Amino acid sequence: MLYTKDEQEKLFLGIDGGGSKCKAIIMTADNQILGSGVSGPGNPLHGFEQAKDSIVKASYLALMDAGLTDIPLNTLIAGVGLAGVNLPQQFRQMSAWQHPFKEMFLATDLLVACLGAHQGQDGAVMITGTGSCGFSYVRGQEFIVGAHGFPHGDKGSGGWFGLQAVEQVLLSLDGFKPASELTRMLMDKLECSTGTDIVEAVAGKPAVFYAGLANLVFDVAEQGDALALAIVHEGGAYISKVARRLWQQEPPAMSIIGGLSVRLMPWLDQEIRDRLRAPVSPPEVGSVLFARQQQALLAECAVKVNH
Amino acid sequence: MLYTKDEQEKLFLGIDGGGSKCKAIIMTADNQILGSGVSGPGNPLHGFEQAKDSIVKASYLALMDAGLTDIPLNTLIAGVGLAGVNLPQQFRQMSAWQHPFKEMFLATDLLVACLGAHQGQDGAVMITGTGSCGFSYVRGQEFIVGAHGFPHGDKGSGGWFGLQAVEQVLLSLDGFKPASELTRMLMDKLECSTGTDIVEAVAGKPAVFYAGLANLVFDVAEQGDALALAIVHEGGAYISKVARRLWQQEPPAMSIIGGLSVRLMPWLDQEIRDRLRAPVSPPEVGSVLFARQQQALLAECAVKVNH
Repeated sequence: MLYTKDEQEKLFLGIDGGGSKCKAIIMTADNQILGSGVSGPGNPLHGFEQAKDSIVKASYLALMDAGLTDIPLNTLIAGVGLAGVNLPQQFRQMSAWQHPFKEMFLATDLLVACLGAHQGQDGAVMITGTGSCGFSYVRGQEFIVGAHGFPHGDKGSGGWFGLQAVEQVLLSLDGFKPASELTRMLMDKLECSTGTDIVEAVAGKPAVFYAGLANLVFDVAEQGDALALAIVHEGGAYISKVARRLWQQEPPAMSIIGGLSVRLMPWLDQEIRDRLRAPVSPPEVGSVLFARQQQALLAECAVKVNH
Repeated sequence: MLYTKDEQEKLFLGIDGGGSKCKAIIMTADNQILGSGVSGPGNPLHGFEQAKDSIVKASYLALMDAGLTDIPLNTLIAGVGLAGVNLPQQFRQMSAWQHPFKEMFLATDLLVACLGAHQGQDGAVMITGTGSCGFSYVRGQEFIVGAHGFPHGDKGSGGWFGLQAVEQVLLSLDGFKPASELTRMLMDKLECSTGTDIVEAVAGKPAVFYAGLANLVFDVAEQGDALALAIVHEGGAYISKVARRLWQQEPPAMSIIGGLSVRLMPWLDQEIRDRLRAPVSPPEVGSVLFARQQQALLAECAVKVNH
């Protein structure tokens, strides 16, 4: 498919960069997604160079996927939503990047997720993937709960579930917690035969490693194992509390998104589940919506300045 | 002071390498400590090269302190007790080191701590510093509780107390835990004015950083703060459980050692406190005792082989 220069200028790049991967899409003015790409970690807090590389790589992959390799990055306007840039230093550092795009509009992964989920309208999202947090955007006000990071925070996230599993299994092997099916499952998964093996296997591992253990906690909990159930109940109760905190901001709608949301959903309080709405679009579409909103605002300002 | 070649051969080097520092002593045949030195981290699990460097550096510092800089390392027999070498891979890797000593006898930090505390006799120790664990050595049998590592284990350690403090303060700032004096104290310590500042300040930090926050948890708990008290009670209860588990091994005596032991002691169960005995010597002396025991065993074997 060939695009005229005029049409090219209406193409947007939408980026969603998180702790484990970075997604990119190419979207037309009439909201058609022409191509998408996925690369490595995109959270600048865990590596600024890596995050930049992941953004550029995912962008090229999206262009390739769209069959648009002849379009240079410097003709595209990019909406970039990233984990970690809720921290002022990370935001400043990433904003100062000599990026390869025509223009870059930078936002938190939270804002673009919220815009995507609610088609650019006000709303709230709970994000449970490698990390966890709650976010609302109501009448121009952003509000964040959680987003504390690993290992000290992010309750109810994949990283947290995995960390709890390892902690509880090791306590169980020492005789401080009841024996649990979780022990066998974790040992199988990590190819370990003793507690010492587990200690060696997990030493120094990041959140993403622990997030890879989250599914087995749910598997074992669903079989009725007491130790796994205690973890899953605690995680679910926390995310339910996050939802209640967000409803206080009076968002018109709320969604739960992220890699762990499907597994976590059944463990949320019934009243919370009943009020959650399926997200309309993924965060990378929210990034495009954000870029368009910012571009419109800039155009509006320019008109005001000229008058 | 001058030493004859014969006397030099009876000098021992005793090393105790942990997560935050490495200590060395030079000890004579009649148990006089001639000099001591302290260098950086000595746990090979957190950096093999760094651990080796720390051991050598602490050894030189001890020789300097003793005014024995003319004695080369390759004339000294070293007893080396290290954190991390309870893991088979770390033990193998460190054993294969082309060390600069005449001979090196490698043991876990746990064994040398126990030998030091009980003058080379059977006994048990609980170690609460940057990390935590329990260990007993009874009738030739070693028994370990804990030593799981950070962030998933080491309850009741400095790293654990600091991690709990950060976690609870961030939950409190989000309104999920009651307001606490711990919040103000932690913010002062970390020079932070918001929760976001804290998230940024602690991102990616190792156990040693968190251990630096442990004392303030005790300070605030001693003022009666509910949040800090809950943390201190949980840590104390766990270490009391470790003590009970160790008593089941029937050690003749038990001690608590490590940088946090003085602060933690008042929070242990009364019956546990009553039975604890002050350690006789520090772990680096235990390392010398270990080296001597091993050397005697080797000599005994040599005699048996010759007969």
